[in-house]
Amino acid sequence: MKNTFGNAVTLTLFGESHGSAIGAVIDGISPGIKIDEKSISEKLARRKPCGVGGTKRREDDIPEFLSGVFNGYTTGTPLTLMIKNNDTRSSDYEAMRSVARPSHADLTAFYKYGGFEDYRGGGHFSGRVTAALVAACAILSHALKTKGIMIGTHICSCHGATDRTFEDYEKDIRALAGKRFPVLGDGKDIEEQIRKAALAGDSVGGVLETAVINMPEGVGEPWFDTLEGMLAHAVFSVPAVKGIEFGAGFDIANMLGSEANDQIRMENGRPVTVTNNSGGINGGISNGMPIVFRTAIKPTASIYKKQDTVDFMKNENTSLLIQGRHDPAIIQRAGAVIDAVTALVIADLLTVRFGTDYLGEK
Amino acid sequence: MKNTFGNAVTLTLFGESHGSAIGAVIDGISPGIKIDEKSISEKLARRKPCGVGGTKRREDDIPEFLSGVFNGYTTGTPLTLMIKNNDTRSSDYEAMRSVARPSHADLTAFYKYGGFEDYRGGGHFSGRVTAALVAACAILSHALKTKGIMIGTHICSCHGATDRTFEDYEKDIRALAGKRFPVLGDGKDIEEQIRKAALAGDSVGGVLETAVINMPEGVGEPWFDTLEGMLAHAVFSVPAVKGIEFGAGFDIANMLGSEANDQIRMENGRPVTVTNNSGGINGGISNGMPIVFRTAIKPTASIYKKQDTVDFMKNENTSLLIQGRHDPAIIQRAGAVIDAVTALVIADLLTVRFGTDYLGEK
Amino acid sequence: MKNTFGNAVTLTLFGESHGSAIGAVIDGISPGIKIDEKSISEKLARRKPCGVGGTKRREDDIPEFLSGVFNGYTTGTPLTLMIKNNDTRSSDYEAMRSVARPSHADLTAFYKYGGFEDYRGGGHFSGRVTAALVAACAILSHALKTKGIMIGTHICSCHGATDRTFEDYEKDIRALAGKRFPVLGDGKDIEEQIRKAALAGDSVGGVLETAVINMPEGVGEPWFDTLEGMLAHAVFSVPAVKGIEFGAGFDIANMLGSEANDQIRMENGRPVTVTNNSGGINGGISNGMPIVFRTAIKPTASIYKKQDTVDFMKNENTSLLIQGRHDPAIIQRAGAVIDAVTALVIADLLTVRFGTDYLGEK
Amino acid sequence: MKNTFGNAVTLTLFGESHGSAIGAVIDGISPGIKIDEKSISEKLARRKPCGVGGTKRREDDIPEFLSGVFNGYTTGTPLTLMIKNNDTRSSDYEAMRSVARPSHADLTAFYKYGGFEDYRGGGHFSGRVTAALVAACAILSHALKTKGIMIGTHICSCHGATDRTFEDYEKDIRALAGKRFPVLGDGKDIEEQIRKAALAGDSVGGVLETAVINMPEGVGEPWFDTLEGMLAHAVFSVPAVKGIEFGAGFDIANMLGSEANDQIRMENGRPVTVTNNSGGINGGISNGMPIVFRTAIKPTASIYKKQDTVDFMKNENTSLLIQGRHDPAIIQRAGAVIDAVTALVIADLLTVRFGTDYLGEK
Repeated sequence: MKNTFGNAVTLTLFGESHGSAIGAVIDGISPGIKIDEKSISEKLARRKPCGVGGTKRREDDIPEFLSGVFNGYTTGTPLTLMIKNNDTRSSDYEAMRSVARPSHADLTAFYKYGGFEDYRGGGHFSGRVTAALVAACAILSHALKTKGIMIGTHICSCHGATDRTFEDYEKDIRALAGKRFPVLGDGKDIEEQIRKAALAGDSVGGVLETAVINMPEGVGEPWFDTLEGMLAHAVFSVPAVKGIEFGAGFDIANMLGSEANDQIRMENGRPVTVTNNSGGINGGISNGMPIVFRTAIKPTASIYKKQDTVDFMKNENTSLLIQGRHDPAIIQRAGAVIDAVTALVIADLLTVRFGTDYLGEK
Repeated sequence: MKNTFGNAVTLTLFGESHGSAIGAVIDGISPGIKIDEKSISEKLARRKPCGVGGTKRREDDIPEFLSGVFNGYTTGTPLTLMIKNNDTRSSDYEAMRSVARPSHADLTAFYKYGGFEDYRGGGHFSGRVTAALVAACAILSHALKTKGIMIGTHICSCHGATDRTFEDYEKDIRALAGKRFPVLGDGKDIEEQIRKAALAGDSVGGVLETAVINMPEGVGEPWFDTLEGMLAHAVFSVPAVKGIEFGAGFDIANMLGSEANDQIRMENGRPVTVTNNSGGINGGISNGMPIVFRTAIKPTASIYKKQDTVDFMKNENTSLLIQGRHDPAIIQRAGAVIDAVTALVIADLLTVRFGTDYLGEK
Repeated sequence: MKNTFGNAVTLTLFGESHGSAIGAVIDGISPGIKIDEKSISEKLARRKPCGVGGTKRREDDIPEFLSGVFNGYTTGTPLTLMIKNNDTRSSDYEAMRSVARPSHADLTAFYKYGGFEDYRGGGHFSGRVTAALVAACAILSHALKTKGIMIGTHICSCHGATDRTFEDYEKDIRALAGKRFPVLGDGKDIEEQIRKAALAGDSVGGVLETAVINMPEGVGEPWFDTLEGMLAHAVFSVPAVKGIEFGAGFDIANMLGSEANDQIRMENGRPVTVTNNSGGINGGISNGMPIVFRTAIKPTASIYKKQDTVDFMKNENTSLLIQGRHDPAIIQRAGAVIDAVTALVIADLLTVRFGTDYLGEK
Repeated sequence: MKNTFGNAVTLTLFGESHGSAIGAVIDGISPGIKIDEKSISEKLARRKPCGVGGTKRREDDIPEFLSGVFNGYTTGTPLTLMIKNNDTRSSDYEAMRSVARPSHADLTAFYKYGGFEDYRGGGHFSGRVTAALVAACAILSHALKTKGIMIGTHICSCHGATDRTFEDYEKDIRALAGKRFPVLGDGKDIEEQIRKAALAGDSVGGVLETAVINMPEGVGEPWFDTLEGMLAHAVFSVPAVKGIEFGAGFDIANMLGSEANDQIRMENGRPVTVTNNSGGINGGISNGMPIVFRTAIKPTASIYKKQDTVDFMKNENTSLLIQGRHDPAIIQRAGAVIDAVTALVIADLLTVRFGTDYLGEK
């Protein structure tokens, strides 16, 4: 469904970096979900450039509700929020309009839209658009939390530097909620890598690790709408994601079956797995253990180095030094976006499973 | 859409391991695609157990067309194929009905379907069902080939042993088409790992690498229905997949932006990238370079070793030694299934883009 | 979604009149719905030619379950049923292949499928395909009945002759269930019209009236997936339907608001409407009153009279006298098909609303 | 898909009568469709109260584009337009909050949303929301017109008074485009009926007739996504519609097959039908003749007469005299909305058939 995702709860994302606004529509949302403005602004804050590097563009990111909210609760009708674009200087872009920035979407946008695309600042492809995604999904996230379902993401590695993995899931997720730089340890090595890249006019990527706890079991489908498939589908919308792995992930390729299999035992009257190499999912369906996945985030494509490229309107070789300020890394911001799409998928699948009232107070 | 995938071309998969038949319905398929029975049986052959280990269950796998085919061509109406299940001995399964095989879907199926599921031989979760998927997608694959679009998958690693990567894409893909054990090199080390696991009553997994060449540029969406998102969604339906990465994948997390970016130059009048770390996709849209991705396949969950588990009806601990014959590895078979879902996604997105006649001879 | 209908419960219809089989796949169905073979065969019987006129083609119509049924209950995985086509003599059709039968789909099929369509006996457009639809929806209908929701359709007029309208809904619906000629009165005038048309080598149509009782209130959407919109969408799939109206329908155009409005009063502790001009639906959502709608069925297009037409391959005028046996009316059979799609829509919307377990015994 | 409609081109409608704005998102729209502001404002003008009766609420209805438009053309990314709600006095509604207006959606909204609905002025159910629908679809309508496809609707009857039917389709449709009171004849009898109802504090409905000309043949699906089914689905979203009929419609129930069948002849090298009882559609697929359908519009539910009803929070009988100004008829305004959803369906099905570039200048 193009720029819409979901079966029972659908989210449509709209807007261009230098258009008048970005926004999102959520349809199929339960009536009676409390709009918790604090949780929305916290999540938006986590998506913003933090101390470590970061763009100077001032994004106020105050979402305005156009529909679907009444007296502080969702109504159950389509919820639309809009974030106005204020700080945009479009004149910068005209000159370089047809010089493709390497590993950006300039060229593919031209292929697809034939020149009608809004090319200013990445247009519809801009990471800016994720502010609307984060704001909208914060509402779902809050509803999930009232059911005990919590989602958290930390940077687990960046250009060789690493963070510890989850230990006490609930405690770790609560700790991450308040952090602008989402790490479980002190994160100094990771910050150092970002600073070094910034100094070199270069950029770095990293790996994010996400956990979802207290997921009801029995959710997901055996084929196609598997829990992994739905999560992966949504996660690859987050700009810069190049890979996703669940549980033991790619490491499982080097294990024996006897090592990889998650043996099972009874604990507090319910079956639990001894290990969680499956990442909380078997046969596409949740087994009640934490859902754990990692995503690979590429280095920011905009760097302060001259790169070879083409002018796709003149069809000739050229080179490019991208102007303006840009982040030396976006991993510290991407976590909030991964959390957002994860909340969307979980909310969608729960609504499919338990009906349209499930997530609200109705 | 549950057990259905696709926007313009949809595939619905049905059947249980020990039911009367498995099958698939493709809707939205172009009229006038030639049914090339040889290519179907070749692809089915690649999905079957080959010399290296393998189940003894004899699968004739002769698909029968119930609808949508007339005079050797697709009609454009829903195409249904069915493969009968002949060699099934269901009595084996009754005794162990509620003992969850570790890392299988027995427990999650029970959570979801509440005991109404067909538990015999994995039921709807069985890898058996992929025979219908492979047969149906072989028709799409053939149609893509008439447009020059070719898909190939090889085992790139298995429990430490490795295969070389793609060099001459077209030549390599052609070579893989005829191989029962899909490797680009001689594959002896990989075979050795599988044999060792078999001897130990254990199992191994591996990593598969897939390439799609001659992909038209400008296909895919910026958000949600990105090319990566659609491929990942479908690929996670292939049983045992635990991860997917595009282009440089997880390695990109250790690169600098200046290393990761794909610089661009003109070649034969069109822009090409010098490297392909993006895996042929920018901003969710094809850029005309080969689409390259790798998938992590877990070791076969059924092994000849006693494992701890629970009886989920009695809610008590127990242990299990799985009876019967099972593959020590399925990576050599999984490639055909990855190729199949890849063809489905590509056919779907091309049909979205270019209309319902695009893939046929109409 | 082309030849698939539904959001949470989807039905895909496949098959051609002279192919090897017709069938249907239902996905998203609740686990634990009893397969009541008697109710399936009763509904299939109501779709067959009854005493009054009727084709001579012998349709055994014994559905075979390929998947999704185990131990007499739905499993919750895709349910596929197939009805084999036995009595087909295809040679009849070759000669007239490109002579368009007036008001049939021969010409439009050629426009759409470009000659690749299976033209024998109407191919995928054949009313024959509705046997699979009726059989599949009989399962949903049975599940609805266990919730108290009942559906019934009678012929309310035919070429001037009329039947009485519903009086005691439940009693009338129960009475209709057992009737091969679905009328509430004695139906003699209607039978007479059909016989007269048959004698004249001509055909007649009519109007069907359908009621759904005990519908839970609060189901349907305000825009697009309104209850009326969903029902109408599905009902227009029933071959020969040319119109649908809810409640007072087209007559409402001649009423004053003060006559058309359904005033409300409390009855047994719940609000009921004094009249039911709205047909049980306000703002696209069920109000708990009986859902009532009427559909216009055109006369059978195949008649024993010479008609002007064209040969669409030669692009020249010609005339045609359609051979073989055909029904002088299908209204008496169409009721079973209207009931079927109504059950599909209701089951779908209830599953959207209340989740995937709602209709089963899980 | 709830409050979203379409397969390839989807429209999501949002907003409440007394919220901050109403709006629509169109996704899947071709890049390069010219935004013709004049045609948008003309269509919005036709939806507004005209001289004959009409609400006093001043609706400026100036759509603001939030996304998907650049340099006066669609970009191909999601197009969002918003119309701000200015003239709203919400305090009027609080007192009567739980007194159900007969034949409005107050009670069903309460059933569905459990009290969280925005009840002011009909909330999301308000006819006000159709302004966004009309504005968004005007863009599609303009694109269709560049392909020669034209849509027009006139009042064909109102409380006994009638208008002539279409004669010269193209000329009649062009004439209707400029009329605030959409009739083909002088319309005096119809205006008289509306005035009489207004004087009596009552309201009237009517029947609208719509034609689509120059429709490409071969568009639509045999089952479910039939052209009739898709149009009916969308049309029943237009508030107050209670019926739809194609071609000869309900009258066909009184015809013989020999009268109802559309015989065919060659004309200017292509097959045309002599009559158009099929309304331009056979087997769910366009045959190239004008698509003709009629819709029944109920009288405005708000009247100046005391009506019996219930207080659904107190669960007791009461009566109600609706305050404020309201239209004695909306048929003259509904035509613009019918045109809008018709353009949506046609644009969607053409994009499915011919691909995503079809409607633009790319």
